[in-house]
Amino acid sequence: MKLYTKTGDGGTTGLYGADRVSKTHPRVEAYGTVDELNSAVGLARAHNTRSHKPDATLDQDLEYLQNALFDLGADLATRPGTTYEKKISRIDAQDAAFLEAMIDRYQEAAPPFTGFVHPGGTPAAAALHLARTVARRAEREVIRLLEVEEANREVQIYLNRLSDLLFVMARAANQAAGIEEHAWLVKGRR
Amino acid sequence: MKLYTKTGDGGTTGLYGADRVSKTHPRVEAYGTVDELNSAVGLARAHNTRSHKPDATLDQDLEYLQNALFDLGADLATRPGTTYEKKISRIDAQDAAFLEAMIDRYQEAAPPFTGFVHPGGTPAAAALHLARTVARRAEREVIRLLEVEEANREVQIYLNRLSDLLFVMARAANQAAGIEEHAWLVKGRR
Amino acid sequence: MKLYTKTGDGGTTGLYGADRVSKTHPRVEAYGTVDELNSAVGLARAHNTRSHKPDATLDQDLEYLQNALFDLGADLATRPGTTYEKKISRIDAQDAAFLEAMIDRYQEAAPPFTGFVHPGGTPAAAALHLARTVARRAEREVIRLLEVEEANREVQIYLNRLSDLLFVMARAANQAAGIEEHAWLVKGRR
Ligand code: B12
Ligand code: B12
Ligand code: B12
Ligand SMILES: C[C@H]1O[C@@H](n2cnc3c(N)ncnc32)[C@H](O)[C@@H]1O
Ligand SMILES: C[C@H]1O[C@@H](n2cnc3c(N)ncnc32)[C@H](O)[C@@H]1O
Ligand SMILES: C[C@H]1O[C@@H](n2cnc3c(N)ncnc32)[C@H](O)[C@@H]1O
Ligand SMILES: [Mg+2]
Ligand SMILES: [Mg+2]
Ligand SMILES: [Mg+2]
Repeated sequence: MKLYTKTGDGGTTGLYGADRVSKTHPRVEAYGTVDELNSAVGLARAHNTRSHKPDATLDQDLEYLQNALFDLGADLATRPGTTYEKKISRIDAQDAAFLEAMIDRYQEAAPPFTGFVHPGGTPAAAALHLARTVARRAEREVIRLLEVEEANREVQIYLNRLSDLLFVMARAANQAAGIEEHAWLVKGRR
Repeated sequence: MKLYTKTGDGGTTGLYGADRVSKTHPRVEAYGTVDELNSAVGLARAHNTRSHKPDATLDQDLEYLQNALFDLGADLATRPGTTYEKKISRIDAQDAAFLEAMIDRYQEAAPPFTGFVHPGGTPAAAALHLARTVARRAEREVIRLLEVEEANREVQIYLNRLSDLLFVMARAANQAAGIEEHAWLVKGRR
Repeated sequence: MKLYTKTGDGGTTGLYGADRVSKTHPRVEAYGTVDELNSAVGLARAHNTRSHKPDATLDQDLEYLQNALFDLGADLATRPGTTYEKKISRIDAQDAAFLEAMIDRYQEAAPPFTGFVHPGGTPAAAALHLARTVARRAEREVIRLLEVEEANREVQIYLNRLSDLLFVMARAANQAAGIEEHAWLVKGRR
């Protein structure tokens, strides 16, 4: 079977279920950006894996998040009330609670938050910061979707929490690598 | 000659030809995103080049794509019917056909598609996945442009095909590196 | 203290000062994209640091830019005329002039601009090109903000200049690494 079906060459695409919409629809923007986020997480995993000291726990946690991001994608691709809804599992408050527990765990391995730090450090940490900002962009796209039609608010909350998790993961990764982060030196003080 | 001309400091810019438009015009968004895509492809090339086992064919194919992306940029930067149109070569169906042949070729070197795979693997494959999602974002911006004014539909089709090509390139790169990809483990099954 | 406050779970957020707005507000899009740019600069720094020949001057200059990007973030997060305005230092023409001096300095270390070059080269240079295109996306978001409400035009000018600086930094990095860049080979000539 060919990978390319050419059905999207006219600018519209199929959601999960029967509906067809423009690829510029906020719903497609939302899951398309979650896909981009998933790829940024994959970049972080790739850099962690080939670093001098790969962190196996971080790798497992990121694989967990990559699976979850496909759950978010399926959730966003399925309009509430349509036929295929019963085939998917929507994101719920327990999913966000799971992230909160992870944040608390990583925070113990990260220096305390006393102000903005320069995003970067190891390549894995730098990619986690990039993923963090893409998570925030994805959150904005989901809010844009919620502003035009019904969708699952828990997806937005999940992304909100996820960007905080990626932040502490980046900081913990730098801490483990012995990299000291520098705080924003405000213009007036430079 | 200075690189910075300051002519864009007021928020407008020049297309290829005489027209000036806001930098927020969908046309500028479209070629600006194609430029971002070109840079993501460059990141994949950089990681492939410095890997333990650089793939020369992949590098050549990516260089081909980088050239093509500038053709897309010039196409998008030139409004149909304006004076400089004769100086450019527009994207056509043969360009997309060329990509289809490449997809078929890479697909032979990649495992069959039996469901979503976690984007990532080698740093080059991870960057190819990132590029894949930026290609899809660029496709959406071109559709947005087509929704407001005349433009070359073949550019959108090209980007649609290109994201499939980047997908199989990523998978072939992982296959060559002996990295086994993992499929999405749906929430209900974890 | 918990990192996550949950106050943004409803889709709105606080600016610097008392105002609350939707996270899809152009102001939030603007500083959110500047944050993404800051992370892309962090990725370039990470790759430079772990390359065979780290460039200490480039690292320092990028750290300078990362600090400046937080100044831009604070500027964008603070509506003109609101209570906390006195706590921040807005971007001004001198900041852009500082960048111009840097551009001129890097241009001496880079080959002359005789046409479009394939973005890429070393991983650091490739990440600088990616950052360059994100800077241009951030510039577009700031212009979008300026189209709906008052904001500091100097921030847009700064981003315009910054994308040119990131371009010459990438080219200088490749020159230093002995990587020869290739120019766009137009379709008609391939
Ligand atoms: C939404 C969507 C996306 C979204 C979001 C998906 C998500 N969950 O995050 C995103 C943007 C990520 C996406 C990306 C891609 N997609 Co898509 N996507 C879809 C769409 C519309 C729905 C998929 C979905 O999430 N369904 C919900 C889940 C729960 O249902 P399900 O997929 O059927 O899975 C259930 C069962 O089928 C089963 N199952 C699933 N896979 C497998 C595999 C095996 C072996 C078995 C036994 C069972 C099994 O288990 C699941 C749980 O019950 C489908 C088309 C469609 N209408 O089905 C295309 C579709 C699957 N995508 C397609 C393609 C090509 C892609 C991309 C390669 C595009 C690209 N160039 O980037 C990428 C691949 C990304 C990756 N990492 O692998 C094609 C595949 C074509 C083909 N030859 O098979 C489809 C069929 C669309 C089409 N007609 O062209 N996609
Ligand atoms: C659209 C555009 C872009 C778009 C899309 C371009 C594309 N094709 O993908 C994007 C977003 C990619 C872009 C990026 C940049 N651009 Co631009 N771009 C333009 C614009 C408006 C048209 C370019 C174009 O595609 N023309 C169509 C092609 C077919 O025509 P052409 O470029 O003239 O090329 C033909 C001939 O001139 C000749 N040719 C071209 N180059 C050379 C070189 C030599 C040595 C020779 C002999 C012949 C030759 O061959 C070509 C085929 O016939 C021009 C301004 C203008 N109106 O020309 C600026 C312009 C070229 N860009 C400029 C700049 C600064 C940049 C960036 C550095 C900005 C940045 N900070 O990111 C980057 C560089 C990217 C890179 N990788 O090198 C400046 C260059 C200033 C200078 N000092 O020379 C220009 C002149 C705009 C300006 N006034 O400031 N750009
Ligand atoms: C706008 C904003 C952003 C923007 C832009 C900020 C910028 N300048 O570029 C961006 C998008 C970058 C951002 C990102 C994040 N932010 Co924010 N951000 C804000 C906001 C609204 C204003 C910050 C600001 O720029 N103020 C202007 C400057 C000049 O003032 P200031 O920060 O108070 O700093 C002055 C003094 O306080 C002092 N100072 C600052 N830090 C420190 C530290 C010490 C030790 C000392 C002695 C003094 C000192 O010096 C400064 C100069 O005078 C605040 C909330 C608020 N209303 O304050 C949240 C806030 C600081 N952010 C927060 C968070 C969680 C984040 C992120 C982790 C979110 C994420 N998951 O990505 C990231 C961290 C990024 C990083 N690299 O560290 C939280 C922190 C929560 C906590 N537990 O402390 C806050 C409080 C919002 C909230 N209520 O949840 N943010
Ligand atoms: C840390 C600060 O970032 C801003 N903020 C909150 N959510 C987002 C988002 N999705 N994208 C960009 N900025 C956001 C708010 O202003 C918050 O206070
Ligand atoms: C694989 C699935 O991705 C969606 N799709 C198709 N084109 C795009 C795009 N440019 N951006 C985001 N999503 C897209 C469709 O829903 C398709 O079925
Ligand atoms: C080099 C060319 O890039 C375009 N240009 C100028 N500023 C931006 C931006 N922020 N984003 C995308 N494209 C831009 C103009 O067309 C310019 O001539
Ligand atoms: Mg948040
Ligand atoms: Mg497609
Ligand atoms: Mg410019």
